[in-house]
Amino acid sequence: MTYCVGMLLDEGLVMAADTRTNAGVDNVGKFKKLFTWEKPGHGVFVLLTAGNLAVTQAVVSMLTEGTQGRRGSKADGDNLFAAKTMFQAARILGKAIRDVKDVDGEHLEANGDAFAASFIFGGQIGKERPRLFNIYSAGNFIEATADTPFFQIGEHKYGKPILDRVARNDMKLGDAAKMVLLSFDSTLRSNLSVGLPIDLLTYERGTLKIEHTKRIGLDDPYFKMLSTEWSKALRTAFANIQALDI
Amino acid sequence: MTYCVGMLLDEGLVMAADTRTNAGVDNVGKFKKLFTWEKPGHGVFVLLTAGNLAVTQAVVSMLTEGTQGRRGSKADGDNLFAAKTMFQAARILGKAIRDVKDVDGEHLEANGDAFAASFIFGGQIGKERPRLFNIYSAGNFIEATADTPFFQIGEHKYGKPILDRVARNDMKLGDAAKMVLLSFDSTLRSNLSVGLPIDLLTYERGTLKIEHTKRIGLDDPYFKMLSTEWSKALRTAFANIQALDI
Repeated sequence: MTYCVGMLLDEGLVMAADTRTNAGVDNVGKFKKLFTWEKPGHGVFVLLTAGNLAVTQAVVSMLTEGTQGRRGSKADGDNLFAAKTMFQAARILGKAIRDVKDVDGEHLEANGDAFAASFIFGGQIGKERPRLFNIYSAGNFIEATADTPFFQIGEHKYGKPILDRVARNDMKLGDAAKMVLLSFDSTLRSNLSVGLPIDLLTYERGTLKIEHTKRIGLDDPYFKMLSTEWSKALRTAFANIQALDI
Repeated sequence: MTYCVGMLLDEGLVMAADTRTNAGVDNVGKFKKLFTWEKPGHGVFVLLTAGNLAVTQAVVSMLTEGTQGRRGSKADGDNLFAAKTMFQAARILGKAIRDVKDVDGEHLEANGDAFAASFIFGGQIGKERPRLFNIYSAGNFIEATADTPFFQIGEHKYGKPILDRVARNDMKLGDAAKMVLLSFDSTLRSNLSVGLPIDLLTYERGTLKIEHTKRIGLDDPYFKMLSTEWSKALRTAFANIQALDI
């Protein structure tokens, strides 16, 4: 399984993914699920992936080859760096997913496997505002708005209550990163198929550069502090509320 | 969907179930999912149900008819009140599930539906300690121990983090009831298929009587207070933890 969260803020983007993969509980691996492409001063793109690892890695390779002009398409239809808006960039990602499906889809199906993959895709191009998309295995997508400024993919339920209570698009980047890590903390405690380290990226609106990425492992002092303090605060909060008088 | 929690404490039992049923989002109903049988001074039994409502209601009817001697079995094999231990009572419940499956199983299957039902079953008989079971659609079951003193059925993920952090078998009944209601509060906020009112029962060890049941609706002052105070406390706790320095 996997857990990824992307959040769109007035100040920019917070994107995070765990790194655990598994095919059954006896076949556990560690793979990166957060990917970036950037052309400094022009545009930055951040992708979080969940689902069949062969599918998501193929999509990532195709996007990378697209930015390198190695997909043989002269028309720039596969090149994120040629997109003029994030909507166009999301379409390019959708097309990459469909291209992978054309090659692998029927073989997966013949094998009884689903073509299962989902993506959170965020970024900023030129003077356009940062935008965030949730992209499905069919290559179609929805976009985050102020009403719901975050998307989750993978094992999303354990970590949703904190987001539902706290997430607002006018939060500071550092506060949003704190909230996203708390959402991971709850998920990690309740589900073994989501595992450390976490890849975390924060993007500051208008910079058009990726400057802040962090890999958070077991020994990360901030994450340890966060996890301990949150547990303590929850227990105190719990103790301070009156018990049910039965 | 459904959400039910049962918890085994040194002091007794806390059992709770929501009341929402749905077949698609456009067909929503309200049905009781917490059932009790008692023979004061001898034994009490509490059942929480999730899954196909036709299946779970049939199981409940069969258990009731069993306690009334209306199932035609002279040997008391269907009568909860004839069980000498909670293990035997859980076996009687398992048999009722299998009897319903014998009648309805193949017809559900022919219709493309699964025989899906799960149960949390707790109680106390005579001088035996209170016991708590999680019973599957196959009629087999597991029993709660001090390591994991609670069971959840239905939409369990949203409400699990609070239980994972706080649940201990040496809690007071009133604190455990508070915790269970907080677990419901998180679930209700994040999932529309779980809905108020909640049926809550607390059982005090050794009383062999059901004395404390409560239906908690939108207007319940304790639940309103709990929900408001918890939100407030979480936001304060969140604000008090240092933001990530990015």
